[in-house]
Amino acid sequence: MKIEERLKDLGITLPEVARPVASYTPAVLSGAYVFVSGQLPLVGGRLKFEGRVGREVSVDEARECARIAILNGLAAVRNVVGSLDKIKHIVRVTGYVRSGEDFKDHPRVLNGASDLLVEVFGDAGVHARSAVGSSGLPLGAPVEVEMIVEVQA
Amino acid sequence: MKIEERLKDLGITLPEVARPVASYTPAVLSGAYVFVSGQLPLVGGRLKFEGRVGREVSVDEARECARIAILNGLAAVRNVVGSLDKIKHIVRVTGYVRSGEDFKDHPRVLNGASDLLVEVFGDAGVHARSAVGSSGLPLGAPVEVEMIVEVQA
Amino acid sequence: MKIEERLKDLGITLPEVARPVASYTPAVLSGAYVFVSGQLPLVGGRLKFEGRVGREVSVDEARECARIAILNGLAAVRNVVGSLDKIKHIVRVTGYVRSGEDFKDHPRVLNGASDLLVEVFGDAGVHARSAVGSSGLPLGAPVEVEMIVEVQA
Repeated sequence: MKIEERLKDLGITLPEVARPVASYTPAVLSGAYVFVSGQLPLVGGRLKFEGRVGREVSVDEARECARIAILNGLAAVRNVVGSLDKIKHIVRVTGYVRSGEDFKDHPRVLNGASDLLVEVFGDAGVHARSAVGSSGLPLGAPVEVEMIVEVQA
Repeated sequence: MKIEERLKDLGITLPEVARPVASYTPAVLSGAYVFVSGQLPLVGGRLKFEGRVGREVSVDEARECARIAILNGLAAVRNVVGSLDKIKHIVRVTGYVRSGEDFKDHPRVLNGASDLLVEVFGDAGVHARSAVGSSGLPLGAPVEVEMIVEVQA
Repeated sequence: MKIEERLKDLGITLPEVARPVASYTPAVLSGAYVFVSGQLPLVGGRLKFEGRVGREVSVDEARECARIAILNGLAAVRNVVGSLDKIKHIVRVTGYVRSGEDFKDHPRVLNGASDLLVEVFGDAGVHARSAVGSSGLPLGAPVEVEMIVEVQA
């Protein structure tokens, strides 16, 4: 795969990785896996949208949040292994959608992340996924997305 | 282990695996592990129950949902590795229970999945588990269950 | 690393591991990883605090809950591999905070777990992390924390 080239062709620039001010880190390499911390839809250090999906934030806006969050996650992976070309497979994605009792469209929201992964990685981007609702998320974010990625040893 | 035979003895038939219409897949094989997507209590493509556990859906009905979801998960594993006899160990199960502020019986709900796994796999079915509440789940499902399974290389 | 000695220096005593009365277990060793079940802030079999974070339970009390839960998790790891000196790296921590729609301080709560891990393990304790809100947790606990740990083969 020439994923770094493909990113350029798609006109996608990964964001800078902000090191969290805490005892944890955006991504950890362990064996053949990179475990990525829960990513928020931060652009330049600020939430792109804030609020509950289905109320203050629309499903389309939340889809965009999922896409931004997964781009932040890919940036964290690159920061740890040097290049996205080292990724063998996107293994699992878990997405949390801040939403109320009656919200049912979590999968549509998470497609913002899943579709981006397949757009960039093709078959190697097809992953296992869980999409769930959350009563609230850090900073008031509408979406949080984490993932596990298999990389070349 | 002769798990496929044991399934027959128990009178358990695994469901068909529905490929989700999306960029993700029900299960991914990576190294010695199968990562299974969050599974809903779907029977023939429809939710067996719908609603919040402790209100529209009873704890017993939710237990049944957890059992159905984990059977869907096992079907997804079989679809990827060919036979349940290749499973070495059920490693981890995470279960999300759609429920309100006062609900506390998440473990009893998830036992519907955990007990089935031990019934089928014996000691190899004893797993690590997290049971948590969720404000809402896809389609309005009362329960969603994901798992990680170790298989023969 | 001399982690067991370091625990003594820090004056930290790990609790007894209570085997849950169910088909699951506090921790599973699989390959080079220990998968730890969702841990509650139980001390001597009873919740240290109960309620929603930001209402009945303060953020500081919830931080303490996260610390207690991760100590229970370390006890579960030791129970499986014999000694914390066998831990190579804390790979991932996921923390669920029982909280309402407006709560945004999940990271501060989880720092109770993350800071303890770095206090005990140093660089090997720096992990990937997800912090999310939950509508409710088992027994009415304010916090639940799970983790994945890499150990010497």
